Amino acid sequence: MSETKIESAGQSAYQKLLDDLPRTGPGTRGGEMLRRYWHPVCLSSSLSDIPIAVRMLCEDLVVFRDGRGRPGLLGIRCPHRLASLEYGQVREDGLMCSYHGWKYDVKGRCIDQPLEPRDSTLKNNIRHLWYPVEEWGGVIWTYMGPEKENPPPLPKIDVLARTDGTVKLVDGDIRNYNYLNWMENFADMGHATVLHGLVIRDIPDELKPYNDYSIKNWTPLPIEHVETDYGMKTVSVLDTGDPEIKFINTWALAMPIHWRFSGLRSGFPPDFTDERQEGGGMIRIIDDTHFELVRYSLTRKGNFTGGWLFGLPSDLKGTAEQKAHDKRKYKGWEGIPALEDLVLQESQGEIPERRLEHLASSDRGVIMLRRIWHKAMEDVASGKDPKGVCREVNGMLEVDTFHGHVKASELKIGPENME
Amino acid sequence: MSETKIESAGQSAYQKLLDDLPRTGPGTRGGEMLRRYWHPVCLSSSLSDIPIAVRMLCEDLVVFRDGRGRPGLLGIRCPHRLASLEYGQVREDGLMCSYHGWKYDVKGRCIDQPLEPRDSTLKNNIRHLWYPVEEWGGVIWTYMGPEKENPPPLPKIDVLARTDGTVKLVDGDIRNYNYLNWMENFADMGHATVLHGLVIRDIPDELKPYNDYSIKNWTPLPIEHVETDYGMKTVSVLDTGDPEIKFINTWALAMPIHWRFSGLRSGFPPDFTDERQEGGGMIRIIDDTHFELVRYSLTRKGNFTGGWLFGLPSDLKGTAEQKAHDKRKYKGWEGIPALEDLVLQESQGEIPERRLEHLASSDRGVIMLRRIWHKAMEDVASGKDPKGVCREVNGMLEVDTFHGHVKASELKIGPENME
Amino acid sequence: MSETKIESAGQSAYQKLLDDLPRTGPGTRGGEMLRRYWHPVCLSSSLSDIPIAVRMLCEDLVVFRDGRGRPGLLGIRCPHRLASLEYGQVREDGLMCSYHGWKYDVKGRCIDQPLEPRDSTLKNNIRHLWYPVEEWGGVIWTYMGPEKENPPPLPKIDVLARTDGTVKLVDGDIRNYNYLNWMENFADMGHATVLHGLVIRDIPDELKPYNDYSIKNWTPLPIEHVETDYGMKTVSVLDTGDPEIKFINTWALAMPIHWRFSGLRSGFPPDFTDERQEGGGMIRIIDDTHFELVRYSLTRKGNFTGGWLFGLPSDLKGTAEQKAHDKRKYKGWEGIPALEDLVLQESQGEIPERRLEHLASSDRGVIMLRRIWHKAMEDVASGKDPKGVCREVNGMLEVDTFHGHVKASELKIGPENME
Repeated sequence: MSETKIESAGQSAYQKLLDDLPRTGPGTRGGEMLRRYWHPVCLSSSLSDIPIAVRMLCEDLVVFRDGRGRPGLLGIRCPHRLASLEYGQVREDGLMCSYHGWKYDVKGRCIDQPLEPRDSTLKNNIRHLWYPVEEWGGVIWTYMGPEKENPPPLPKIDVLARTDGTVKLVDGDIRNYNYLNWMENFADMGHATVLHGLVIRDIPDELKPYNDYSIKNWTPLPIEHVETDYGMKTVSVLDTGDPEIKFINTWALAMPIHWRFSGLRSGFPPDFTDERQEGGGMIRIIDDTHFELVRYSLTRKGNFTGGWLFGLPSDLKGTAEQKAHDKRKYKGWEGIPALEDLVLQESQGEIPERRLEHLASSDRGVIMLRRIWHKAMEDVASGKDPKGVCREVNGMLEVDTFHGHVKASELKIGPENME
Repeated sequence: MSETKIESAGQSAYQKLLDDLPRTGPGTRGGEMLRRYWHPVCLSSSLSDIPIAVRMLCEDLVVFRDGRGRPGLLGIRCPHRLASLEYGQVREDGLMCSYHGWKYDVKGRCIDQPLEPRDSTLKNNIRHLWYPVEEWGGVIWTYMGPEKENPPPLPKIDVLARTDGTVKLVDGDIRNYNYLNWMENFADMGHATVLHGLVIRDIPDELKPYNDYSIKNWTPLPIEHVETDYGMKTVSVLDTGDPEIKFINTWALAMPIHWRFSGLRSGFPPDFTDERQEGGGMIRIIDDTHFELVRYSLTRKGNFTGGWLFGLPSDLKGTAEQKAHDKRKYKGWEGIPALEDLVLQESQGEIPERRLEHLASSDRGVIMLRRIWHKAMEDVASGKDPKGVCREVNGMLEVDTFHGHVKASELKIGPENME
Repeated sequence: MSETKIESAGQSAYQKLLDDLPRTGPGTRGGEMLRRYWHPVCLSSSLSDIPIAVRMLCEDLVVFRDGRGRPGLLGIRCPHRLASLEYGQVREDGLMCSYHGWKYDVKGRCIDQPLEPRDSTLKNNIRHLWYPVEEWGGVIWTYMGPEKENPPPLPKIDVLARTDGTVKLVDGDIRNYNYLNWMENFADMGHATVLHGLVIRDIPDELKPYNDYSIKNWTPLPIEHVETDYGMKTVSVLDTGDPEIKFINTWALAMPIHWRFSGLRSGFPPDFTDERQEGGGMIRIIDDTHFELVRYSLTRKGNFTGGWLFGLPSDLKGTAEQKAHDKRKYKGWEGIPALEDLVLQESQGEIPERRLEHLASSDRGVIMLRRIWHKAMEDVASGKDPKGVCREVNGMLEVDTFHGHVKASELKIGPENME
């Protein structure tokens, strides 16, 4: 049992694990682990002729694209007199500080100091904080770990490489709590039948043909958690009217910031369809108490394209009645799963005081996630690559998202990919 | 002399007393004393089908009324995974967490865990933080002290039990400073002739018949402070034109959050009338730097019902001229006693640095209050009931509020109640 | 070399200097040095019948003018019960606390306690915090140093004494960063050709006759830094087409809060004119991370009076294009020197982490300023007057502001005043 393993380390070690888990800054156990992976910085489309201040893993940085089109990620403060490069000027070959004109290329080399004598070599001694950047799939990515000059290759999210449909990529959903509140929520599919079942949602008429009404006993959801190469997945196997046919749903987490699902609405009931619409996203970790969601979806020819909500409703209102005597921050919030998740995750606290928890059998997914994070932190501390870091060049990050009906005789729910 | 007694304890003990006095949290000397009394949580009318987050004495709680009408007060965070019960669902027999469905009754017992196996007994091991609650007089009350299972009986404020008039009960006046700034202000009636005399207020024509213009020399106010069973009172005895007749006013504080007066406007000059309109209120202590006022009044048949202000003006403006060059937070604030008190109390600081004070003879009331608080903290520390805790079942909290003309030969200003 | 001198003190001493430099509070090395000089509190015109809360060098004070016209500066909290004197009442002979009527004259003496017995002598024992104040040149000044009863005479800024033109005096530009960010910017004129050259500004037609187009090679600006009795100055000597004629500009800093220049626009290119318009100002230091600018200018008969901007544009917008994808606090900020300085100074941080700097030869002015500040702090620590404190009664503070064309044979750029 994973519970036993963690707890056998002793109460203080367990407490230390709980404290370290959500940390993201440099020098923290959590932060050092996170720095072995590539992270999204912003969408490619955000970068034009103005540098953008961007906080990543507790570090204040500036992202820009030089005049030759190369993206760069530098420390936000000019090392000369500490002016912010957010107000710097994009130049052909780099980013120039507006104060005294010191200019840096995308690798942090100081390539101009216009107020110094022409024969000065001072600039050769200046190397500004920089991180390697790659642009792929419509996203600017960075690697903030120790192997800056020779980082592991960028793992390419399979969905973003797809050409058999339309990929939609949306950023801008910024949360003011720790990123693990989100990740643990996704490792904990039991909540779906309670939280997302608070309001009974009608199935629109146009969707009814897709649904399989022969499925019963889906609440509470029967779920299994499986550790995989990339992280973990949660699989639900439901009985149908035909004992030879099962209905399968899969939700997957790839270390340390990716989540994935398939189906019309994350596969949650009443989505008992064979309709596969790949969905998911990744987290841009800002600091211990802030993150940004970058969501994506793949819509292929023939897919149902009805008005499903992608992310939060813009007015942050649910479908429940808005009552005049409701004085809470979120009123009438029930009824929209993305909003329900926001409200409950945020309510756990900026960084939940996990030592006060009382875990139960429905938390097996959460416990698996913490065990994986724990192992990854220990691997990094002992000089090893943590789970999911791949040294294979140009490798795709393939994540299980199987969803639909399958013959019982062909059922596999192990760590291998399911097609 | 009370000053002598307090100071004889030595400078550091006196400093410690000043530090402890305004504290309200668990484990503080002030907070432990406060936890021996019943406190208002909210008005009965506020509780319907939505739980309400409520911070009480530095503790974050949720108050709700279950489907059977029973009010409950629980720790705000679900002990399972720390989601906020402010977003919980009111059920017939308790409050259900919206995240995984754990449900608690009004005594904190976990009565459902829908995602656990049907034969699980885990819920029997969960006891959530709860406090005993009573509903009386239109108010939800709680006792947060150590005798949770068998608290002392709720002392019932006499005014709220009255049936010979109309009781008005108003909450919602929240202050961002320590509750003792308010209480000390009320123990310090000397300020009335300075602060509340800054602007000379006209007596409306319809009130003139009520006033006794034979009273002179009321400024400065002659006042005596008297310790009572419930706390303390301040009595002012004024000479009238008739040497046999005195005009009496009384302001009382009942430990540790109640204040009381009688008369049209707290009995402040020029209210020299026999008109008795019971007034006062109680403090809901939020934390060290926030409290809410819950005011009440009793208007009986025949009472003057002209437009006296009950509490603060909604625009927080006084009757003084609003000057364009006035850049202060409160402009033209003078002229309305409740606003004058707010401005000066708030200006003393969130928690006044009392070690910097220079007390004078006009501070005898404040010194008496502090001595009573000091004694109460010491009594609690030594296991005794502090002043005013009453073990008599269904006892009324009777507080002196005498106001009006009285024969000099019948004058009593001792600790006994005056009718 | 000044760099050598500072650094030879060792790394930890240098770090301590960097830490002490920006401090302004009582008991800090920086704050004690600042307390040997007179500081502006507010404009004379601001003081009428309402006291004004004013934070000066980290101390919360109240400035007022009593009914006899005398300005006073007192601690903001009444020493009785700590109510704020910001809500006090101006009286003929002092400022009265609105709470209990204690009244203070401009020297902090308690002159009334209306709630105390008539024969009480308690008030004679109360001396409230006060600072000496002088009113001169349209400004209320104070001296917060140890010689309160006998401070050094107020140094009178020459411009404010001028009668041969119109003096304009404007306050209200409050910044939320340390005052040294401003002062160092002014000691660092190299930035002008980079920062203030980002946008090429046209010379209005009506100004063209004033400008000397024979001046070339003004970028980068050739500058020399000269220590003076009052502080330091920066002098730029430019070649003109005539080898016998030089174009001179001067920017001066007087310890510890004054800056001065001459010319139409601080003398920055393309202001190569003989037009002399004295300009400058002084800093009201609020605390370590806030200050207010009090600017002044002198316009004499015959001066160009075109629409030059005095201080910041009210909309905080520059002349650069406002781009929709610009999400920064300041958008399109380039093009107006005062705004450019604000943006870059603020961007250095509330208190810049100077230990992270990499100084270069263009920072000679900044290094000179720090050396002067360092010496002043050391002088104060050893009981001496720091630079610029003048014991001469009614002395003017004369500051170099030479600007215009001069014969090469008559050129002087030493510490003496240039007329």
